[in-house]
Amino acid sequence: MELIVELLNITTGGNRIAVVSEQTASQLGVQSSDRIKITYGDKTSIAIINIAEHFPSNRIGLFEETEGALGVKGDEVVDVALAPLPESLFNIRAKLRGERLREKDIVAIVKDVVERHLSTAEIAAFLTALNIYGLSTGETEALSRAMIMTGKTLNFGASPILDKHSVGGIPGDKTSMLVVPIVAAAGFTIPKTSSRAITSPAGTADRVETLCPVTLSINEIYETVKKTGGCLVWGGSLELAPADDLFIQVEYPLGIDPMLLPSILSKKKAIGATHVAIDIPTGMGAKIKTRQEAYTLASDFIDLGKRLGLNIQCALTFGDQPLGCGIGPALEAREALQTLMGGGPPDLREKAVSLSSMLFEMVGVENPRGMAQDMIDSGKAERKMREIIAAQGGNPAVKPEDLPVGPKSAVVRSKEAGKVLWLSTDDIVRIARMAGAPKEKGAGVLLHAKLGDYVRKDGVLIEVFAERSSKLSAALELANQLTPIVLSKKPEAKMVLDTIPEKPPHEKSFMLDR
Amino acid sequence: MELIVELLNITTGGNRIAVVSEQTASQLGVQSSDRIKITYGDKTSIAIINIAEHFPSNRIGLFEETEGALGVKGDEVVDVALAPLPESLFNIRAKLRGERLREKDIVAIVKDVVERHLSTAEIAAFLTALNIYGLSTGETEALSRAMIMTGKTLNFGASPILDKHSVGGIPGDKTSMLVVPIVAAAGFTIPKTSSRAITSPAGTADRVETLCPVTLSINEIYETVKKTGGCLVWGGSLELAPADDLFIQVEYPLGIDPMLLPSILSKKKAIGATHVAIDIPTGMGAKIKTRQEAYTLASDFIDLGKRLGLNIQCALTFGDQPLGCGIGPALEAREALQTLMGGGPPDLREKAVSLSSMLFEMVGVENPRGMAQDMIDSGKAERKMREIIAAQGGNPAVKPEDLPVGPKSAVVRSKEAGKVLWLSTDDIVRIARMAGAPKEKGAGVLLHAKLGDYVRKDGVLIEVFAERSSKLSAALELANQLTPIVLSKKPEAKMVLDTIPEKPPHEKSFMLDR
Repeated sequence: MELIVELLNITTGGNRIAVVSEQTASQLGVQSSDRIKITYGDKTSIAIINIAEHFPSNRIGLFEETEGALGVKGDEVVDVALAPLPESLFNIRAKLRGERLREKDIVAIVKDVVERHLSTAEIAAFLTALNIYGLSTGETEALSRAMIMTGKTLNFGASPILDKHSVGGIPGDKTSMLVVPIVAAAGFTIPKTSSRAITSPAGTADRVETLCPVTLSINEIYETVKKTGGCLVWGGSLELAPADDLFIQVEYPLGIDPMLLPSILSKKKAIGATHVAIDIPTGMGAKIKTRQEAYTLASDFIDLGKRLGLNIQCALTFGDQPLGCGIGPALEAREALQTLMGGGPPDLREKAVSLSSMLFEMVGVENPRGMAQDMIDSGKAERKMREIIAAQGGNPAVKPEDLPVGPKSAVVRSKEAGKVLWLSTDDIVRIARMAGAPKEKGAGVLLHAKLGDYVRKDGVLIEVFAERSSKLSAALELANQLTPIVLSKKPEAKMVLDTIPEKPPHEKSFMLDR
Repeated sequence: MELIVELLNITTGGNRIAVVSEQTASQLGVQSSDRIKITYGDKTSIAIINIAEHFPSNRIGLFEETEGALGVKGDEVVDVALAPLPESLFNIRAKLRGERLREKDIVAIVKDVVERHLSTAEIAAFLTALNIYGLSTGETEALSRAMIMTGKTLNFGASPILDKHSVGGIPGDKTSMLVVPIVAAAGFTIPKTSSRAITSPAGTADRVETLCPVTLSINEIYETVKKTGGCLVWGGSLELAPADDLFIQVEYPLGIDPMLLPSILSKKKAIGATHVAIDIPTGMGAKIKTRQEAYTLASDFIDLGKRLGLNIQCALTFGDQPLGCGIGPALEAREALQTLMGGGPPDLREKAVSLSSMLFEMVGVENPRGMAQDMIDSGKAERKMREIIAAQGGNPAVKPEDLPVGPKSAVVRSKEAGKVLWLSTDDIVRIARMAGAPKEKGAGVLLHAKLGDYVRKDGVLIEVFAERSSKLSAALELANQLTPIVLSKKPEAKMVLDTIPEKPPHEKSFMLDR
């Protein structure tokens, strides 16, 4: 039937949606969430139907995405007909029944996700089913390939291309900001793309952004890497495996992460990496809680890597507490810079040296650990970092103390004396986010005590930084409700960790950051 | 932060959604699908965030639902802050992990569904998890009670209140149009609410609407039932268990139906039913394929009924072919009327008599089957049906042939001679819907051959009716591609039913109609 276009002048955030009245929907024979085919001249577009109560029945409302696809103007006439459900939706239904999907089924789903032919409800159902049933090795490989195929890829020419990735989970992990300059200073190519925080107080892109711009075009990235051998950029705008970004958007409220492996490795493959070190922080405070889980994940990574032609080594790293002391974009960037300059917390330096030497070993360097240490001790890594900062458009002479933190801050003191028995990374994350991180770059938490440290009564446990006093108060209030750092004179005095009056509250932490 | 209201003047179909720019989202610290709390004077509303690329960053776009909740006008200023995720979302996450939900967890979810605090993606994930894990008896009961609690309930005073329901699945099942007048003619109360077709060619509401209005207010329903003892109305606008309607909307594209039991029984309980006969059509052509499935479903119905205080009996009925011959709203209403007048197809009469007598037996009638037959043979049921038609605002003198079918029609003939070996109800449904049913009430299919009938070469298999010649052609084309009726001289000549060159195509039929 013919309908007059009403431009709604608003985007849906990607989905192609068209609005019609109940009466028109009834005449078209469509239900809410059915698809229609809209024809305008020689252009056609599939849109998902949204039925509105008070909408003129001779009109069709188009959000900007559909307007753009058709190149239509307001008050023009389009032809509208019921469209069949996309083939990929039948593949999703098969997965809901527990069937195994073939490669072409998965390609159809990923293509329709990228082309916005599937609704968020349909994508949510697919991800839920994957989360519950798990993925076969073949499905994992097919998903990775389909996500690479539907996005852009980078090509830095020279082989090998090194990369480093953390599956995420412990706050304060700024290791990439050291590994990239160490590896590049040794003459290797390491084009690092990274993400912004979703559920954590800072992603690598958030940290680096306090030093220099991270939103670079593909050409600017090629330039930077040509000049310096490395880069530290935000991957979000590069359309590398764009399906993954859409999946993550839907996973986020659901608290599920069924595609960790294909999500990470499709992006590594898309930037042309040949050798990848994967960091798996393991422990009470990390996303991966037990060594057994970590070993399983590591062998899955290595297996999928082989299938995709990636040389992978995994490191199980200590994940019982935050890395270093600073948590929050600027606090972390300060600490990374200090460490490159020869200072900084010893755990951060040790981890950066270990992961860098793992990469050196993979490409055949003779004394890999020695080389990694030398890059820091000789000041080469620091100089390389300043080259990268300059190439990305920042100030290469920046000093750690130049990075603004706070300006509002306050300390939380201990009510008793004792040794640090454990740290709750969940609580620390919540306090740092309440203070404004990651959006407010100067906000965060500085730890004054870590595992095994002795704290006297009224000693400082943590220092909270915020850009606004209202956020500082909120974060301090939360810090007083929670117990981010637990002290004990002797372990046997604290055998009961918690008491449960009923089923425990639901707010489990969820980490979607990579 | 303070933002200026921009009214979008369009509904979302229920969800409370607010639009902000990327920059504003970043300042608020919200991701797409996070919630915000909007305050206007002394009113507040929670809305789900939709991030739009090109939106003025000092403004917030409100769809009509949120506009209505706040009572705000365009260009007024509202205060906006990040809101915590609703507690019910943590319950959904627990279900995604396979945890069993407590009654209060389920109440929280259902309330937030009705109050539109959960996105369709979140509801889809919940329903997918229920579909895969299944529901415990306690969860089924809690869901039913929560759905009743969050909707309206009817009270017809006099006990017993009888009802009849089919789990659906075979086309042409117009039994309710006979059971209601038979039971009401015997002096009992049977206020029947029913649905429109979703995936089938006609729902009871669609069929009855060819005789009289079915969209009645609650007061009009009370009037009709007081006058006649029965009614045949559309339940969709009565807000009985409204959560169920919202769940069905999300289930429809996913092809899943995890809440069949609570969905049906919550509506029975909401209209105050005390005795319910549940029809479970069982067979190749029905939703329930095997007797074992049917027996399990029946015992689940009886068990849930007990928990909800409903007296339930189930009937396993023959589901290998459509009931009667007419499929499509007007064709079916004709057949129902003919059967009440003493004619009609014998399978329809038999089924209506059996289900009515089951209800009579439940309330202690002495010769239940005799009473049901007598109601038809004496003409009392027909007169009662005409009373109901009049009370609902239709013409009580209507004759079957008055109901307009077609006007376009054509027959499909057999290419060979033989006995009907089987009928594909899926194919028949697709042809009837292609012809225009259920939206075009005169459209549908009339079967000229049923199981065991002999058809000569060039004999008529089916007759297709449509309101428009384009739809008639499309339906005939489909009928020629498909094989709705399979003939064979002797079964051993047709041992191979189909051959599979690869994994079979995905388009499995899905029946969401109740």
